[in-house]
Amino acid sequence: RIKASGLKLRFCTNETQATREKFVKKLQGMGFDISVAEVAAPAPAACRILKERSLRPHLLVHNDLVPEFAEIDKANPNCVVIGDAAENFTYANLNEAFRVLIGMEKPVLISLGRGRYYKETDGLKLDVGAYMKALEYACDVQAEVVGKPAKMFFESALAEMGVPPQQAIMIGDDIVNDVGGAQRCGLRALQVRTGKYRPCDENHPHVKPDAYVNNLAEAVDIILQQL
Amino acid sequence: RIKASGLKLRFCTNETQATREKFVKKLQGMGFDISVAEVAAPAPAACRILKERSLRPHLLVHNDLVPEFAEIDKANPNCVVIGDAAENFTYANLNEAFRVLIGMEKPVLISLGRGRYYKETDGLKLDVGAYMKALEYACDVQAEVVGKPAKMFFESALAEMGVPPQQAIMIGDDIVNDVGGAQRCGLRALQVRTGKYRPCDENHPHVKPDAYVNNLAEAVDIILQQL
Repeated sequence: RIKASGLKLRFCTNETQATREKFVKKLQGMGFDISVAEVAAPAPAACRILKERSLRPHLLVHNDLVPEFAEIDKANPNCVVIGDAAENFTYANLNEAFRVLIGMEKPVLISLGRGRYYKETDGLKLDVGAYMKALEYACDVQAEVVGKPAKMFFESALAEMGVPPQQAIMIGDDIVNDVGGAQRCGLRALQVRTGKYRPCDENHPHVKPDAYVNNLAEAVDIILQQL
Repeated sequence: RIKASGLKLRFCTNETQATREKFVKKLQGMGFDISVAEVAAPAPAACRILKERSLRPHLLVHNDLVPEFAEIDKANPNCVVIGDAAENFTYANLNEAFRVLIGMEKPVLISLGRGRYYKETDGLKLDVGAYMKALEYACDVQAEVVGKPAKMFFESALAEMGVPPQQAIMIGDDIVNDVGGAQRCGLRALQVRTGKYRPCDENHPHVKPDAYVNNLAEAVDIILQQL
């Protein structure tokens, strides 16, 4: 319905353990009309930055994410890109990423997110943010974070669509990463009362959505009514 | 000569990749009159804290350091002790230490040092401080650091000797960890112009030794002259 109305659309995710292809297949299986070109994710956002600034990354990421960097020159690296590398977070790989960074006159560290930890079926796991902090401390550098809620991330999705922030609306279930991040970037933002939404979000000390909706369909209704 | 004069003596090291036994053997081989009981090192200092506070550690340390914790109850852990675990810094071991910490009502993390990195024959390696920062961030906790320059470390060496800080002198080559740490604890401190000493240390912005000596023998001369 959004697409049929002529509005532009992007799906913004912080997924960094798989390519957009894999992510899109999963959503198509759930019945969403979605294509890879409509997905904004940390890895392609990082690729845009790498190209703009002529950066050649040393990658410390999940094996399944590597194809996203296929077109990027990785010879003689002049920055490090870190994602949720999971099993690739070995002692040897961390030392190698560290050596690349510390060998630079001015180390550049790009992090695909800043999460602390997450839960999998076999228990809690340290997320990319923890390893980012380790490298930040060792190299006395501050990482540039790509992904929600980073301003740069929303800006690059807007740039792709050619839409200014005041003409865009974010719909999300995460009060801080979706709603707060988008608002700081000048977008309006709706919080859906589904997914990771919790009633206590409505008393959040810093972030107040422009409106609440009970689900995604209701958000679409409201947006189309205003056209 | 120090011992013959009747002065009390401790050797203070930040070594956490081997037991004191191994460390002492090395120094004996170099001709030093030294015994295990005269060595203050992070692991035995941590053991003292663990006993005092009835803490049962989950250990994330180098295999060669484990014997230092032989007498410590490690069942049903209520804190994590992290040292320079080197090859033991695996993804699985880091997640395990994290899970122990995050499962506590008030996580207790004890770190055997806060070094950023060090050099080995096969290149630079991340030191314990980097992994400490990763766990600190993931668990939103501040580690208690044992080892130079922590105040607690010097205090425990003084307590062992039964000597107040104003009657003790630190001799070391590290302007921050040896000299600065000891002075903050109320000791006087001499910097030797050997080892990791560099001429630019004499212009250090924050730390000024009580005196410089060209080597350890000269420090001993000066100290014995004042008796």
